[in-house]
Amino acid sequence: MASEAKKAVVLLSGGLDSTVLLYNMVKDFECYPLTVSYGQRHEKEVLAARTVCMARTRDLLVRWTWLNLEVLKEFLPSALTGVGEVPRGHYETESMKLTVVPNRNMILLAIAAGYAQGLGAGTVAYAAHQGDRAVYPDCRPEFVTSVAETTRLGTGDAVVLYAPFVHMTKAEIVKLGAKLHVPFPKTWSCYEGGPLHCGVCGTCTERREAFRLAGVYDSTKYVAEVVSHA
Amino acid sequence: MASEAKKAVVLLSGGLDSTVLLYNMVKDFECYPLTVSYGQRHEKEVLAARTVCMARTRDLLVRWTWLNLEVLKEFLPSALTGVGEVPRGHYETESMKLTVVPNRNMILLAIAAGYAQGLGAGTVAYAAHQGDRAVYPDCRPEFVTSVAETTRLGTGDAVVLYAPFVHMTKAEIVKLGAKLHVPFPKTWSCYEGGPLHCGVCGTCTERREAFRLAGVYDSTKYVAEVVSHA
Repeated sequence: MASEAKKAVVLLSGGLDSTVLLYNMVKDFECYPLTVSYGQRHEKEVLAARTVCMARTRDLLVRWTWLNLEVLKEFLPSALTGVGEVPRGHYETESMKLTVVPNRNMILLAIAAGYAQGLGAGTVAYAAHQGDRAVYPDCRPEFVTSVAETTRLGTGDAVVLYAPFVHMTKAEIVKLGAKLHVPFPKTWSCYEGGPLHCGVCGTCTERREAFRLAGVYDSTKYVAEVVSHA
Repeated sequence: MASEAKKAVVLLSGGLDSTVLLYNMVKDFECYPLTVSYGQRHEKEVLAARTVCMARTRDLLVRWTWLNLEVLKEFLPSALTGVGEVPRGHYETESMKLTVVPNRNMILLAIAAGYAQGLGAGTVAYAAHQGDRAVYPDCRPEFVTSVAETTRLGTGDAVVLYAPFVHMTKAEIVKLGAKLHVPFPKTWSCYEGGPLHCGVCGTCTERREAFRLAGVYDSTKYVAEVVSHA
């Protein structure tokens, strides 16, 4: 169970941010992408995670792990796990708080760290970034610092958490992803589970805006091709 | 989702320590006992947790929740989750490290805190104590302090962790339990899943010694009625 510095577990939701993170991490680590279902409304993200790994290298697909904890759905009420409607608009709006899954990041990071320790991987990387802070308490820098210390202690110094995007905006992540040739259309952000990105839920709004601000062409297909108000 | 000070989630393994904790907590809180299966070798503990709640009051049984996360077994290798033999003897021995489940307490506490937040319970109580420190990094005071801070931040100040036994020995917990009329024989400590406590595995050894040191009659039936060497 000794940790090796070069193995890393990467929390991969199948969304844009964690996919860019994975593409950035593979340069320096033997990456073990981990996708956890905690009762999200739909499986599009899981399929996206798998597709993203497949697109990169065969090795990455082999090392990709899907952990099905859908049973948590009943324990973690949120608009994202089936309680009520998914709200629309920007993350800053009050209604977006309905998408908070109670203590989600601590749960995911704790499990990822246990998995990493068992694997002998000394690092767990995740893609919390600046844009998530307004609504999600478990994406704020003070949480990121504290959860890293708890993980270090809980694993007896075996696992280090790594959140390289914590001070980056989503637009900066898009820019980095473009440089790394991330296949953006294969990633999935939308809170709804339709055949295309809806274009109007909280995360679609953030995604579109990030491409616009980054000056990167957005090849995602949206149902609602409306002009962004931001 | 506003937290009410008087509701508490109590992590209840079905063992001696968490049962004493529950009996102590019901004096001041409306308790929601939570038992999590993370791939322990057997179900005796879960049954004990249920029995303990039933023995106390009908309300407690109604509020008892069992969360089946047995799928974690494949992700968290340990002698307790089916990898290798369960070692015997004292917790201090090197071999007892085989019973470490990677990052277990952080995982359980993160989930319990998410569950508490959803319920509107402001407190999560758990029974880490002094005797666990030697072998389990996630029972040490510095971990207890750090995980409390992470939980507070991760839940946006909704949930407080409470570990009242962290500076108590197991013998002191037995003494407290005796005062509270805890039905000790209904609790289950043994790492083996036999019909009776084996009496020689790490946790049976600690249990027997705790009763002896506390000067409390041990009504547990053990397979190996050998004299303790301590």
